[in-house]
Amino acid sequence: MSTVEETGGAGRPEDKPWAEVTPEAARRLLVAAVEAFAERGYHATTTRDIAGRANMSPAALYIHYRTKEELLHRISRIGHDRALEILETAAGADTTPTERLADAVRSFVRWHAVRHTTARVVQYELDALSDEHRVEIVELRRRSDAAVRGIVEDGVRTGEFDVADVAGTTLAVLSLCIDVARWFSLDGRRTPDEVGASYADLVLRMVGARPVPGAAAPADQK
Amino acid sequence: MSTVEETGGAGRPEDKPWAEVTPEAARRLLVAAVEAFAERGYHATTTRDIAGRANMSPAALYIHYRTKEELLHRISRIGHDRALEILETAAGADTTPTERLADAVRSFVRWHAVRHTTARVVQYELDALSDEHRVEIVELRRRSDAAVRGIVEDGVRTGEFDVADVAGTTLAVLSLCIDVARWFSLDGRRTPDEVGASYADLVLRMVGARPVPGAAAPADQK
Repeated sequence: MSTVEETGGAGRPEDKPWAEVTPEAARRLLVAAVEAFAERGYHATTTRDIAGRANMSPAALYIHYRTKEELLHRISRIGHDRALEILETAAGADTTPTERLADAVRSFVRWHAVRHTTARVVQYELDALSDEHRVEIVELRRRSDAAVRGIVEDGVRTGEFDVADVAGTTLAVLSLCIDVARWFSLDGRRTPDEVGASYADLVLRMVGARPVPGAAAPADQK
Repeated sequence: MSTVEETGGAGRPEDKPWAEVTPEAARRLLVAAVEAFAERGYHATTTRDIAGRANMSPAALYIHYRTKEELLHRISRIGHDRALEILETAAGADTTPTERLADAVRSFVRWHAVRHTTARVVQYELDALSDEHRVEIVELRRRSDAAVRGIVEDGVRTGEFDVADVAGTTLAVLSLCIDVARWFSLDGRRTPDEVGASYADLVLRMVGARPVPGAAAPADQK
């Protein structure tokens, strides 16, 4: 079974997922695990199921992964690393808070739309991680949250944004983007880029973005 | 095992969940099924697990539910009926679109916060329903969407809202509210009512709500 997430492509890392996983057999097993976890849930999936999907023997699987939890951890770690990279790249740009926030939302939403199967597994199976691994992932999530909160704080400071509850608004912005993975369908009428652009406009409204003298006007502000 | 969702309370229906399920044995089995599905996933749960959690025998379970899917369908149906009731009640009020939208978001968010375990099961296990039951549930979701879209359309018509893409904005508003079930925790620093109020403000910003002459001003608009 092959999903669109597996197909190669050029450009952004989400177009060539799991490229960092080598050798090829380990990569195939990871792709098979994502599909199995998404379809049946982590607890209903066995390492035998995963090996079978990858046309490999259970023994061959154990060469690359000692346990099913190790597969989930690897998936979760790569997914969260990429999410953090997207948000920290956007947050670190030398542009206005308005441009940085729009950029963060566009690329974060695009990732959740293109990689929706992976994102669902990563989000819904957090409780299945070992305690040690969960602590590690929670720390990555804390840093993702901090990257977005930093942009919102900057915007409040420059007067571009009007936000009473920075922590609550940051949580809502991330939540809105993450939930794209739940409802997004490749059969739907919007492309990942279109959803990203539309969500960037909505988020700028949520933070009350308004043009400041000398700054570029955000695209949707009238 | 008992969750807060099971504890009784006064007032709104979400404070006394599953009261419509009788007799008491059938209700206990439903509560046990929600907990088991939430913890382990639908596919990893057996009817034996569910009966065990309810301190009943598998044979006693079959008196009330023929299959595991029947339990999931009952949970999903009650959850979606309640969501639709909340949204249609808000949409049908004799108030301004601004007030109706704020009211819909407040009560829809409150339901997803208080009933977050049920809401997660209902949202994440849709694919496990039979084809016939999925068609029925999709129709309830279409009507929920239509209720909110109707409010947004009314607001655009009266000039209270400024929305270019009514369908896309409606989808985003519902998505934001639904995802509360994923992240909400009773250990968190916000109550369901506080999240509801804060989200109503954010959603009014998303639709570009502004006071119209003769209408009450929305709480967060400055």
